[in-house]
Formats: sequence, structure tokens, C-alpha cells
Amino acid sequence: MKQPENYGDQNLTPTSSPLSRVDIALGERSYPILLGPGLLGSADAFAALPIATTAVIVSNTTVAPLYANQLRVALLGTFRVVHLVTLPDGEEFKTWQTLNLIFDALLQYGCDRKTILFALGGGVIGDMTGFAAASYMRGVPFVQVPTTLLAQVDSSVGGKTGINHPLGKNMIGAFYQPLKVVCDLATLKTLPARELSAGLAEVIKYGPIADLEFLTWIENNIDALMAREPAALAYAVQRSCEIKARVVAQDEREEGLRAILNFGHTFGHAIEAGLGYGSWLHGEAVGCGMVMAAQLSHRLGLVELDLVRRLASLIRKAGLPITAPRLAEVDNAGRYLDLMRVDKKAQGGEIRFVLLDGSGSAVLRGAPDALVREVIDACCICL
Amino acid sequence: MKQPENYGDQNLTPTSSPLSRVDIALGERSYPILLGPGLLGSADAFAALPIATTAVIVSNTTVAPLYANQLRVALLGTFRVVHLVTLPDGEEFKTWQTLNLIFDALLQYGCDRKTILFALGGGVIGDMTGFAAASYMRGVPFVQVPTTLLAQVDSSVGGKTGINHPLGKNMIGAFYQPLKVVCDLATLKTLPARELSAGLAEVIKYGPIADLEFLTWIENNIDALMAREPAALAYAVQRSCEIKARVVAQDEREEGLRAILNFGHTFGHAIEAGLGYGSWLHGEAVGCGMVMAAQLSHRLGLVELDLVRRLASLIRKAGLPITAPRLAEVDNAGRYLDLMRVDKKAQGGEIRFVLLDGSGSAVLRGAPDALVREVIDACCICL
Repeated sequence: MKQPENYGDQNLTPTSSPLSRVDIALGERSYPILLGPGLLGSADAFAALPIATTAVIVSNTTVAPLYANQLRVALLGTFRVVHLVTLPDGEEFKTWQTLNLIFDALLQYGCDRKTILFALGGGVIGDMTGFAAASYMRGVPFVQVPTTLLAQVDSSVGGKTGINHPLGKNMIGAFYQPLKVVCDLATLKTLPARELSAGLAEVIKYGPIADLEFLTWIENNIDALMAREPAALAYAVQRSCEIKARVVAQDEREEGLRAILNFGHTFGHAIEAGLGYGSWLHGEAVGCGMVMAAQLSHRLGLVELDLVRRLASLIRKAGLPITAPRLAEVDNAGRYLDLMRVDKKAQGGEIRFVLLDGSGSAVLRGAPDALVREVIDACCICL
Repeated sequence: MKQPENYGDQNLTPTSSPLSRVDIALGERSYPILLGPGLLGSADAFAALPIATTAVIVSNTTVAPLYANQLRVALLGTFRVVHLVTLPDGEEFKTWQTLNLIFDALLQYGCDRKTILFALGGGVIGDMTGFAAASYMRGVPFVQVPTTLLAQVDSSVGGKTGINHPLGKNMIGAFYQPLKVVCDLATLKTLPARELSAGLAEVIKYGPIADLEFLTWIENNIDALMAREPAALAYAVQRSCEIKARVVAQDEREEGLRAILNFGHTFGHAIEAGLGYGSWLHGEAVGCGMVMAAQLSHRLGLVELDLVRRLASLIRKAGLPITAPRLAEVDNAGRYLDLMRVDKKAQGGEIRFVLLDGSGSAVLRGAPDALVREVIDACCICL
């Protein structure tokens, strides 16, 4: 692989100190992301948390059997009691009903305002545990322990939490920051191939919106990433976290700049809601959504076709779909538009897209419906 | 009635400027409480809000027929579209299911992040609308328009929002401040007598925990308050808001001092949950709970019996119950203790009570179970 500036020492033992650290600077809500292999079983990684007697690990039926015990043992160095709540696995369970299972457990275990929650899993677990932490007794502390590439490079960082509503993705939630994020890179070894690809979608995202050099690095290292070379993955996670940290520090509550992190997500959320949550993985929908958003950028004259092609090629190499699914037999584009109108970035009924300008940055703006329809029609047939 | 220092001019017309204003100082989250008769129909009272095209009034089946149209007309001076969401009335509906009716409506109306919600009603409407505002798209602005005495003197001020869980009152929610609070004192004219009494419980609360002079004033004016003399009510609301504003400004997220505002609430919440939400009004449970907490304070040697008697007498004169209900045929006190152990102030399984120290201030501390049982037994039979 092409040498990145810094991806740390790979010879450390699984329970060694973190390879590296990225800080999210948010004043009194600042926190570190610790990155390295084996961190999940390291008591050190969970040191320096507020004093509490009780920890609650929230995980799912896929991840808990693999990693919950390791985390429990690490936490028993600090907490007298460690409970485990196991939820069903999948985006289709990111609902109030599942969230309520967390509240039921917390109340049954007699958890108080000092109890610390640990989100052990992917984006769905992180988002739901974060929202449960934000809302239980009006707020208890929590720690993100992401075990998927997608969660490590994106969803566990920055404090966006929430659940889906049948009419729109992530419509109910809170901005609520964790105490820290502990990324155990060794967990990527057990990740299903489809989940690895989904995570790469969010890695690729950072290139065109914030760092064209990183885009080139991903292009040069996509085979190493797909082969799960630890050094390549470590660098991809760290660079993604660095970019996200920089953006979130400038705009925690998405009043402007932060929206660029939603590149590909406006189309992507429509795909997820339109097909039914859990049909496509979030990262798959974002991958395809980025191709659509890049196409729209090009048709608006913002970028050359060459960038669209580069991006589509990379997304395809990452094992992601680049042809959009049909969401309706009749007026498919109209269905996309309806679903996108409830997007959180919309204002006064106007959909606002994150669009590329070709110089490693992005803009938030509207587009004529007719043009958006053209893009949808083109992407639903073939690129 | 005994003359308070300042309760404004009673000769103003119903749509005049506010009689008075109390400010909640919370840095960038600061906001005013406007107090006066007829404010609900005054476009001026709703001026200076962020620019938005859409307002959504959230109310209930009791309050909406009385006041929603008046508020709608006032808001149409500022907003192009004003929607109304009408919820069922009562504490038993302070649930996720009802909250979800607000989300459904907001999504169906295509509400975006700029939409402003208006909570028109009592404490239940204010708490649920506030939590909906905190969570919809991770946060939209909202305004409190309290129409009950309880909401005007307590629940609409300070940013506590939330819903009940079958196992505990207000267990799920957020600290989320409104843009402003508009207290139309004229709405107190239509308040059922039982609701007036419930509101007086929270007014009385402020005396023993923060202002013994105010306690004396309430004792001297309880007949005027029960007779709904506008000047007496206006002063009671204003003084209550002033005290609450002072406490909340010092401790927004209840890390210490703010807990004193929960005087009577630990026992009170157990009564509400134990009888089933909606059986006793919140204020009724708090009234009785204050007698119990005062008794406990006395038995711990913190206050003279005289203060307990004064308080019980005043609470009785306010039309509130001072004899506690039995919550279980067998081991009634044990049932109270179980319900109180999930209280949000509890730590490591120890219930912490807000107790009086006799000098117009309160302390948060534990008490031996045996003593708490004695108080429960004494209060459940007769005072």
C-alpha cells in the first residue's frame, strides 16, 4: 500500500495502549477517539471515566456473542456491576419499540443518573444507545465502542443519535456527545464483507467533500482495504475521524458546514426508506446516493464528468451498488422526490442537496425538480 | 388581600402589553417569561421569534376548543401556516404513543428544522411538546403557552421535558429550553377548581424551600387565591417564576441545587405511579408529598413540628389531600419504597429526599428506611 504519514505500530499486542488518538474539540463536551487493535479488552481504554458503580453494555444478537464478554471483563476493572442488554440486529429495528427495550432494562436494573451506557456494535446500536443515554432520566453518560467500519469512521463520532420514523430516517433523536469513542480495529476482522463495503462508502465520502488527496489515497489502496490489510484500515479510520472531528468541532449542531458530511445521504435516505429499512444497508444506500449526488453536481455544472466517473468506479470497486433501485412502478422519480422532501436539510419544502464543487469541498443547495428527475431516471437504469 | 410589592396594573385591556416579565438567565439559552392577562391573543407577545413559515400548536381536547383559535389568530400575524395538533387530555396520555402523534403530524405537515412548536395547555402538553421539539429532527424551537396554574408557576419554566414510563414518572426526556414562555393569566378563569388547587401545590412549594416570607404571604392570601382574585394570582405566578428562574439559572441540569424544586415530588411521584398516572393530579400528589417530606424532615430533627403543621394546614386550605393513599394492601410502605427507589435523584439504590431545614432552604439527603416507613404509615392513616 501507499505509505500514509502515520498509521502507527502494528506490532502491539491486542491489549496494548491505543495506537493513536483523535480529539473532538467541543469545549466542555470534548472527548477523545482511541484507535487501535484489541482496545475492547483493554481496561486502560476505559479508564478516566466518571465514577459509577454500574455499567450497561448495549449490543445486538450478532455482536454480543463475539465481543460482549471481552468488554465486560475490561469494564469489571472499573465498575462493580456490568449489565448486558441485547437487541435484535438490523436497521429495521432502529425503532421506538427497540429503544424502549433499553429503557425497560435500565429501570429494571435500577440504573440511576450516574450509570454509564456502552454502545457495542455498529451504527444502529450506537445511534439507539446514544439516544437512550440522551433521554434516560434526561441524560446519562455513554461511551461508543463501534465494531463496524461504518460506525468507526462515521456514526460513532460527533454525537448524532436517534431512531427512524416510518416516514423518514433518523427523524427522532438528539445531538448528544459520548464521553469517549473506543475503536477496536481488531473487530474489523469479523465484519461480514457486505458491512465492510458499507463502511467504505463513508470512508470514500470524506475524499470529494474535504480532502482530494485522501480520495487519491483510497483509490490507490482500495484493494488493500478490501483485503482488510490492518495498516490500510487503520489509516482509513484515523483519517476519516480526523476529517469528521474537524468538521464537527466547527458546527456541532449542523447549522451549516456539518451538512457536507451528508453527501450522498439525501438520495441514500430515500433509498433506505423507500425500500424499507434494512433492505439495503445504510452504507450501500449512501454509496449509490453519492453517485447520484455527483451526477447532479455535474448536471448543475459544478464538476467535470471525470470526477463522477472516478467516484463511481471507486464505489463499485468497494463492492457497493452504483445503480439505484426503483422505488415505484409508476413515477419512480416522483417517489424519490416525495421521500427526499422530508429530509432534515429541506427548508420550506425545498430539498437541499450536498453537492460537489470539484475542489475537495461541498456546497448545500437546491436543484430544479426536473434536473433531479433526470438524475434519478439515469441512475435507476444504468450509470 | 395583603399587598405584595409588585403585581402590576390590573386595568389593562386583555390584549395589552405584558404586565411583567421574568428572565431566565442561561447564557445563549436565556429567555423571558411574559406574564399578563390576554397575552395568548396578542401578536406582540409572540414577536421576536426566529423567522419561520410554519407554526404548530400542540394542545389537548380540553384546552384547544377554548384557546387554540385565539392563539392561531395571534400567530397568523407572523407565520404563513399555523397547524393544530390536538392530543387526548390527561397524565395517563403522557406516553410515547401520544408523543408519536406529534411526530406523525409534523412529518405529515412536512415540518422542517425551522418550524416552531407552541405548547398550549398544562404540564402534560408542555412536557410532551418540549420533548417532541427536543427530538424532532434532533431539535426544533418551541414556545410554552401554559394555560394552567401548575404549568405557569412551574412546569413551563426551566426546560424539563419528557414522558412517563410505566415504571417511573418523567423517566424519558430532555433538558430543552423554550424560546419564551407566554403566561396568559386570563386562562386561569376557566381552570377547573381541582386544577387550581393542583397548581397551588407548586406555588406553596416555593415558600418552605426558598422564601419563608412568600410562605407567609400565601398563608395570608390563600382565600384570595382560591377565589381567583387576579392580583393575588398574578403575584403568586410572578413570585414563583422569579424563584424558579433564580434556581434554574444556577443549576440548569439539576447537578445539585435544582433538586430542591422537587420538594414533595419523591413521595408524590410514588403516589402517581402507584395509583396509576392520572388518578391523582400531579399537584395533588405533590401537595400530599410535601406533607410527607415535611414529616420526614421533622422526624430527622431538621424542622420543628410547627412548620409541618403550618404547611399541612395551608395545603389543606388549598383544597389538596394531606392524607396519603394506600398503594398496597400488604406492606404498603414497602410499595412506596420500591416506587421511590427509581426516583431520578436516587444514587446507588439510595433514595434521596428533598428535606426542609426550617430556614427557607432545603437539603438533599437519604434517610433510614425504618424512619421513612414510619412517615408513610403515619401519613396513610391520618396526619
